[in-house]
Amino acid sequence: MTAPQRRNPQTRDAILAAAFELCHERGYAAVTIEGVAARAGVGKQSIYRWWPSKGLLVLDAFRDHLDPRLATPPAADLPLAGLPELLQRTAALLSDPRYGRMLADLVAAAQHDPALAKDFHEKVYRPNREGTLDRIHRAQRAGELRDIDPDLVADLLFGPLWFRLLLMQSPPTPEYANRVIETTLAGLRPA
Amino acid sequence: MTAPQRRNPQTRDAILAAAFELCHERGYAAVTIEGVAARAGVGKQSIYRWWPSKGLLVLDAFRDHLDPRLATPPAADLPLAGLPELLQRTAALLSDPRYGRMLADLVAAAQHDPALAKDFHEKVYRPNREGTLDRIHRAQRAGELRDIDPDLVADLLFGPLWFRLLLMQSPPTPEYANRVIETTLAGLRPA
Repeated sequence: MTAPQRRNPQTRDAILAAAFELCHERGYAAVTIEGVAARAGVGKQSIYRWWPSKGLLVLDAFRDHLDPRLATPPAADLPLAGLPELLQRTAALLSDPRYGRMLADLVAAAQHDPALAKDFHEKVYRPNREGTLDRIHRAQRAGELRDIDPDLVADLLFGPLWFRLLLMQSPPTPEYANRVIETTLAGLRPA
Repeated sequence: MTAPQRRNPQTRDAILAAAFELCHERGYAAVTIEGVAARAGVGKQSIYRWWPSKGLLVLDAFRDHLDPRLATPPAADLPLAGLPELLQRTAALLSDPRYGRMLADLVAAAQHDPALAKDFHEKVYRPNREGTLDRIHRAQRAGELRDIDPDLVADLLFGPLWFRLLLMQSPPTPEYANRVIETTLAGLRPA
């Protein structure tokens, strides 16, 4: 989002807090720009000036309210470049009642909202993916993983977690993430 | 769906064909019950009598129009109980322009529609899952796969395919399915 107008940070914070809270209380589908405006005590136009759609607003609300313990990447000098910890943290995020459902709803909305899909890709997916690929490269350089396409390795590790959230509607636990990484790594270690 | 009233099969077919066609031409988000009724030449009430929502209607339209070549499971007496063929067929389904987007839209809509989620689970997810688990059991009994929780094995194989469709918006190809199964199986074969 580029914002040509200067925005009042307090107004911005109030809007994002209202969007985050309403998503929890009522679920994404029931959130409206009107409802967020009323809760934040601002006019609808103040919201539309910066966020052209509900999806883009909720995406920023998610990012703004993400618990730093879940957002901060694990150290990269751990064994396997911290991939097991990263997977556990992703499972913790997807199974967290504050964030899991909201992410599932954003991914769902992005299926038929190209602007949201683009924003989600740029702000959430790509930065996380780049960090993951970097860890996979490190682990491969350290001889801890076989030399397989890092993009495929990332899909094999993170795909099952999102599958549980979106298809099975039973979010992955950190214990589940451990089982995924142990089983997958059994096939990825050097021969 | 239970239908206490007797339904005219021709009317039913016309409604499902109209829903399937409109999903393609306009995308799921733009399909309305009104539009389907007009295309099928029936009244809206004829649709609502059997399908209480757009999601449930489109789910049945998808199932009714599924290409038998993609719907028929591969033989179970192939090596690895046909799991590689099943994974390729799933990738072919998810990357097929007739079905991939429709499935992504149904999964998306199911995130905030419990009735659709339940129907999707019962009609699509569970029958497929049971068939997959049965194959994994067979391959394990034949000594072709290690004795790992079959539910986890199913997630490891199919999770990456859905991840590509829903998160990366780049549907998996059969060639990609081959890479998933080869790499995953490397860790699942008996020691």
